[in-house]
Amino acid sequence: MIISIIGSGNMAHHLAMAFENDNIQIESIYSKTSKNATKLAAKLYDTAVQKSLDFSDSESNIFIICVSDSAIEEVANAIILPDNSLLLHTSGSMPLSILNVAKKNNFIETGVFYPLMTLSKDVALDFSSIPICIESEDKKSVDALMYLGKKLTKKIYTINSKERKTLHLAAIFASNFTNHLWAISKEIVDEEGIDFEILKPIIKETLRKAMEAEHPADVQTGPAVRMDQTTIDSHLKSLKEDKDLQNVYKTLSNSIKDWHHGE
Amino acid sequence: MIISIIGSGNMAHHLAMAFENDNIQIESIYSKTSKNATKLAAKLYDTAVQKSLDFSDSESNIFIICVSDSAIEEVANAIILPDNSLLLHTSGSMPLSILNVAKKNNFIETGVFYPLMTLSKDVALDFSSIPICIESEDKKSVDALMYLGKKLTKKIYTINSKERKTLHLAAIFASNFTNHLWAISKEIVDEEGIDFEILKPIIKETLRKAMEAEHPADVQTGPAVRMDQTTIDSHLKSLKEDKDLQNVYKTLSNSIKDWHHGE
Repeated sequence: MIISIIGSGNMAHHLAMAFENDNIQIESIYSKTSKNATKLAAKLYDTAVQKSLDFSDSESNIFIICVSDSAIEEVANAIILPDNSLLLHTSGSMPLSILNVAKKNNFIETGVFYPLMTLSKDVALDFSSIPICIESEDKKSVDALMYLGKKLTKKIYTINSKERKTLHLAAIFASNFTNHLWAISKEIVDEEGIDFEILKPIIKETLRKAMEAEHPADVQTGPAVRMDQTTIDSHLKSLKEDKDLQNVYKTLSNSIKDWHHGE
Repeated sequence: MIISIIGSGNMAHHLAMAFENDNIQIESIYSKTSKNATKLAAKLYDTAVQKSLDFSDSESNIFIICVSDSAIEEVANAIILPDNSLLLHTSGSMPLSILNVAKKNNFIETGVFYPLMTLSKDVALDFSSIPICIESEDKKSVDALMYLGKKLTKKIYTINSKERKTLHLAAIFASNFTNHLWAISKEIVDEEGIDFEILKPIIKETLRKAMEAEHPADVQTGPAVRMDQTTIDSHLKSLKEDKDLQNVYKTLSNSIKDWHHGE
């Protein structure tokens, strides 16, 4: 199994490092900005910079597209692959079928290799606890994806495009939005000169309880679930200088009230 | 130090158990619904049920009001205490001054003993990692609160009423609202028959990263911070059957965009 990677962002970076750690050869990196490809290749043991999307002379049999969602189809359309290649994308929200344009000229298979994780530059990643969602219509390609996934993690899930889109949407709520709420809470205490450290225990305990409950809704606390309108009004008044925070507070409180007390 | 507790809800329950574990005597429990006081007293070693708010014959020197915010002042007004008592409330959002009505007839001191934690019935609590915020205008009472707090935790903070209210508001964002977002994310995957377990690693990693970052905003990921309107629109379309979720998604995405890309 020899891999080439298209892209040089967070996903390309984390996957290349992880595969190389597991002794899978990364033959080449392509990036629109070749400087970025050079940077990433320099971090790897024996990886070349690919200058164009014409991979016809490549020895790789797996090509992983790690570019932004909106650029995947363009890459799939332009890429030229050796016969019998497997072309993958790594996106949570894009269907497998977006790679169909790559099938036009020669015999290639397509698949998805989607690590369900939040990736940040400069934050090292231990893939062993990360679920990887794989998809392909070709049985042999599913086996290859399974083999590749197992190099990184024990948590492999075969997930179709519709399910993957749902997972990705749920992850926005579960990860991106919660992170933003922590940012807001830090901002609120910072303004009063209070140390954010004081909030960390309640944040960690909230997560622990939610993950151990049968349903996070079972352990919901706070003024909204108690229908404590006096506290809610007092908080909205405190936030009157910041219409955005007031709006976030109101929307989430209403959503909690609807969930627990609506019809 | 002998304690009596007014109230029989989560806070009364957790504090009574924790103090007794540290060999502090809980003399009596009062609750408007005396059945609940009986229930809690039965869990303790040698605690009586107090039938009225007239504590003039009590041997306690610390009285802790653990009732809902809206009932604190009523209790403080009605309670009759022995001289030289310290009367406390445990609320994050109520000022110390709400207890002033209790000072009218005899020499008593007032204070606040606020554990910054999410309390759920049936979820055992280890106070040792919980920050306790204390406040009193009386130096000796601060010492007593410090002594009492140190029985439970090493994390004691002297916090005034304004700061405490800010902390409480920040905790709504950091704890109550995030828990609700996890509930929503579970609902979204449940509807598709996908196991919520698949999301737990990304949830835990998001928290770990946010807590280790200098500011959670520094590690914000997702379509909103990337200004990826195509993905946002596609998610809003998926949520069109649920106006409430659509509204939560839109409000939080706009808030993230404003934070990271607004003026």
